[in-house]
Amino acid sequence: LASKLPDVGTSIFSVMTQLAQDSGAINLAQGFPDYDPPRPLLEALARHVLTPGHQQYAPMPGLPRLREAIAAKTARLYHHTPDPATEITVTSGATEALYAVLAAVVRPGDEVLILEPAYDLYAPAVRLQGGVPVYVPLLLPDFRPDWDQVAAALTPRTRLLMLNSPHNPTGATLTPADLDTLAALLRPTPTLLLSDEVYEHMVFDGEPHRSVAGHPELRERAFVLSSFGKTYHATGWKVGYCVAPAALTAELRRVHQFITFSVSTPTQHALADVLPETSLYDALPAFYQQKRDLFRELLSDTGFRLLPVQGAYFQVADYQALAPDLDDETFARRLTQETGVAVVPLSAFYHNRQDHRLVRFCFAKQEATLRAAAERLRHL
Amino acid sequence: LASKLPDVGTSIFSVMTQLAQDSGAINLAQGFPDYDPPRPLLEALARHVLTPGHQQYAPMPGLPRLREAIAAKTARLYHHTPDPATEITVTSGATEALYAVLAAVVRPGDEVLILEPAYDLYAPAVRLQGGVPVYVPLLLPDFRPDWDQVAAALTPRTRLLMLNSPHNPTGATLTPADLDTLAALLRPTPTLLLSDEVYEHMVFDGEPHRSVAGHPELRERAFVLSSFGKTYHATGWKVGYCVAPAALTAELRRVHQFITFSVSTPTQHALADVLPETSLYDALPAFYQQKRDLFRELLSDTGFRLLPVQGAYFQVADYQALAPDLDDETFARRLTQETGVAVVPLSAFYHNRQDHRLVRFCFAKQEATLRAAAERLRHL
Ligand SMILES: CSCCC(=O)C(=O)O
Ligand SMILES: CSCCC(=O)C(=O)O
Repeated sequence: LASKLPDVGTSIFSVMTQLAQDSGAINLAQGFPDYDPPRPLLEALARHVLTPGHQQYAPMPGLPRLREAIAAKTARLYHHTPDPATEITVTSGATEALYAVLAAVVRPGDEVLILEPAYDLYAPAVRLQGGVPVYVPLLLPDFRPDWDQVAAALTPRTRLLMLNSPHNPTGATLTPADLDTLAALLRPTPTLLLSDEVYEHMVFDGEPHRSVAGHPELRERAFVLSSFGKTYHATGWKVGYCVAPAALTAELRRVHQFITFSVSTPTQHALADVLPETSLYDALPAFYQQKRDLFRELLSDTGFRLLPVQGAYFQVADYQALAPDLDDETFARRLTQETGVAVVPLSAFYHNRQDHRLVRFCFAKQEATLRAAAERLRHL
Repeated sequence: LASKLPDVGTSIFSVMTQLAQDSGAINLAQGFPDYDPPRPLLEALARHVLTPGHQQYAPMPGLPRLREAIAAKTARLYHHTPDPATEITVTSGATEALYAVLAAVVRPGDEVLILEPAYDLYAPAVRLQGGVPVYVPLLLPDFRPDWDQVAAALTPRTRLLMLNSPHNPTGATLTPADLDTLAALLRPTPTLLLSDEVYEHMVFDGEPHRSVAGHPELRERAFVLSSFGKTYHATGWKVGYCVAPAALTAELRRVHQFITFSVSTPTQHALADVLPETSLYDALPAFYQQKRDLFRELLSDTGFRLLPVQGAYFQVADYQALAPDLDDETFARRLTQETGVAVVPLSAFYHNRQDHRLVRFCFAKQEATLRAAAERLRHL
């Protein structure tokens, strides 16, 4: 059986997590918290699991009460109220939302613009639709988009542009000016937008998150994705969602109904219970900023050069002062196996495995975990 | 935005469930139980939701302990022990398994054989991969495959044959002779098999389920799918799985990691707890046979002609004596809106909406529900 993705192996996150387990390393590689979801959410789920009648298929687009809560949250934060009936779809994590958007709109030969470094599923998921990923590099040192390069890459075949802010792996965020520039670029085109905003509640230094859902022009052509796994420290629950205009949502649902059909009913009920408690997600910027600041301070005397982090829960670091001759894959592997701290080499986020001598740490960890990791890193 | 599936609307199951709700009808349309999962399973899930450390990403192929329990179950029932490490993958319902198998192996131009009537996602999911569905009718009145017609439909381009036993919507089951005939047919070909066995525990009249996983020759080319939603009355939990030889599983996982990545961690833990309690699924044939027999008896004086049912939880009925002039869509709609019993017209399972004047009832309902529905049907 010839593979449809012969050059694609197991996701780097699974590989590094496995290596971390095998070597007893502290796992700062795969992006997930080592703390639990808020107690009210856990209790809500346990309650709904024991509630008669809550264990059968949810409606295909999501529970109405969860979609209503998402609409209210979107209105509160981004001053735009999507219609729960026609503009919101609950998915099996943001992963399924990403895949389903691509399956819904990308046809063989369509080009899809990907700003690199990029999350490792973007390109293979495009290729599985017969689409052609077109890569535009984000500019070092701060990983900002070069909009002139984006403009130059747009062609009449560009079906979709994939945006991600706050950005994984770099923590860069887009500004209102970025969104305006992008809107002007796309204005004369039929190109659609996929905006991956799973880290929407992790933006630091007093800045608000600039959601595409809050941009009146861009949102007319956009699928905006978020993830309850990220927001509620529940990556293992696999619930995300997509906000998009009715015409786009209709296409998304056409394929979502055949990809997973629907999402865990009791889990949706539990999320619908807590989403109106705005204090839970309002607390996240400060919660994660403190972790960012702590981790940067802990690493300040280690020889790593730390790149700026404006959002998300990742710290990118240059290790050249520590190991000038090692490529990032080798360095990440050694750091995991010898130093006992697992990280992701940034080359994993480039289609051509470009090596900038950078690795990514996940700082969504308890203070004790971050301190223990820093202790090991100090003895490098 | 031109649709990739312009002729595909909302799944018939969603449509009829909505119509049932709008008209206050008893919903015997969409296939789901109106009773809850076994208490030990509910309690296990509530417990795992409150267990620290069980709320983050499960491993991409599924929790090892759940895969081990699936291997043990497969060994016990079908005398074949798949390797949990390389031959079992846990998915977001059998729906995701179906979709992912197609995404993994079907290329543009590949033909996929579908025996009709067929579950409504098969053909659109094939077409989304650029595949070409090739339809072979099951023969009335008992909906058996005509293997000569299957043989005639096989071409060098046939990538996959989709099998489903016990069969939705008709309740027909395959015999050992069917599997042997199919094995001989496929022997000279590279055609793969997708065996949808989500109703594996609902086979009646003392017959065992004839799993492709128990057929030493066929299983070498087969993806065998099952559904915990069906087995544990938990359709809303969305956990299924696929058993396939290592080379096929490798391709499935390559796409599964990008479609949903992983499945609810606490839910997998709960299923791993109860799957070894064999008495739970061993009780299902008798449990559902009693419902089948009750429902058939209740309908015996209604003018419906009931087709034989060997498995699954659906009853197909011919309504011509009651409404000789109505096509099945009109009849199903009227039955829902006027009589107050929602059903699915069998034409929804044919790509060309072929009308055999048949409708499908789901009998996975409490005795009181079945009696109330029969009461309404008696006053037709
Ligand atoms: C689905 S595992 C990857 C988690 C994640 O978002 C990351 O580590 O970047
Ligand atoms: C995913 S909703 C459909 C449920 C089902 O299997 C059926 O009704 O046939």
